[in-house]
Amino acid sequence: MRISGLAAATGVPVATIKYYLREGLLPPGEASSATQATYDADHVARLRLIRALVDVAGLSIAAVRDVLAALGADDVFDALGRTQEQLPPRVGEDVDTTAALDLVHTLGWSTAPGSAPLRQLAVALDAAAAVDMAITPQQLEIYGRAAYEVAECDVAGVPTTSVADATRYAVLGTVLYEPVLLALRRLAHQQVSAQRFGAPRPPAHRSRSRRTPVSPPASSR
Amino acid sequence: MRISGLAAATGVPVATIKYYLREGLLPPGEASSATQATYDADHVARLRLIRALVDVAGLSIAAVRDVLAALGADDVFDALGRTQEQLPPRVGEDVDTTAALDLVHTLGWSTAPGSAPLRQLAVALDAAAAVDMAITPQQLEIYGRAAYEVAECDVAGVPTTSVADATRYAVLGTVLYEPVLLALRRLAHQQVSAQRFGAPRPPAHRSRSRRTPVSPPASSR
Repeated sequence: MRISGLAAATGVPVATIKYYLREGLLPPGEASSATQATYDADHVARLRLIRALVDVAGLSIAAVRDVLAALGADDVFDALGRTQEQLPPRVGEDVDTTAALDLVHTLGWSTAPGSAPLRQLAVALDAAAAVDMAITPQQLEIYGRAAYEVAECDVAGVPTTSVADATRYAVLGTVLYEPVLLALRRLAHQQVSAQRFGAPRPPAHRSRSRRTPVSPPASSR
Repeated sequence: MRISGLAAATGVPVATIKYYLREGLLPPGEASSATQATYDADHVARLRLIRALVDVAGLSIAAVRDVLAALGADDVFDALGRTQEQLPPRVGEDVDTTAALDLVHTLGWSTAPGSAPLRQLAVALDAAAAVDMAITPQQLEIYGRAAYEVAECDVAGVPTTSVADATRYAVLGTVLYEPVLLALRRLAHQQVSAQRFGAPRPPAHRSRSRRTPVSPPASSR
């Protein structure tokens, strides 16, 4: 198919496809004349993947490039590490991870002092604490347990058919299932709040008093 | 303090502070002359909050503006809904949420068909499925259970001192604890993988064979 067909098949505008071609995210099509190229099903699949990484995972173009490169790694854990390095919050190498490492040890886990997710955890904990929202040790234990249950489920799903399959699953499962987990947490907030504080009332009846400690859910907003 | 003092106290460059002032994220200082203004501890706190929302939660300036506005809501659930609407993945109103709503019902939860987290879930599930990484019902049950445990812990922590306190906790806990949960999941991936596939070997000894089904962790990268 021509570039217009690729656009039609994926819903991605031609200008955006050309941008991805220039940036090297999408391999060039097969030249059919001096000014035309043809594209195939692999281009459609790659383009869908780029859009998932940009639109849903929220990665920058530079991060997408690195994540796509990680798909070609010949070692699953190398691919996983390279992918984790590209995920938000983006952190430098010089983050103090002492407190975060203590926490990881409290959970009974181990990690390298400079690993990307440890630095990401340190930055996230510091940011919450800086606005008087420090997460408590009790909360962290529950968060850690929940994260572990999810990770066990993820790792159990790693295909053993080939390194390429395992790498793809590790990389894309890391990136694309994060938004699923977060959306479920937000939905669970609605659910748990409604149970604790009562069913939502229509907005017209909503209390306007600042003295009401907690008001009913607006899940129907 | 002057704007230079505000910059020194927070590590945010003067040019960035001026940008936040222009965008209305930071309230103006008190004018001390035609060209000078003074700033106080509230400005320091607000600036730290903006940076947490931008740098760690990854919100756009427009999303930060809405989240800051939600802090002033006089209803906790209104604030929560407005905050959830600003979170990634950003989704339109026209997303088909039928399958996502079925899933939510399977978990025993309820939500409005057009609620923001339901649309976010629908988009995240579709993106994974579009690249042959559809998440299974079994995985979703585990993800849902983990999200629920985290949400129970979150809601249990809502302060009952005042609506303002509860709103601040709901808004900032939603936004700022998400990166904590994700960093813990990434660390748990390292931990569970190491347990399942063996302790990490140094990179120099790492297998280069494409035939090895799964290779050891690179958590020390």
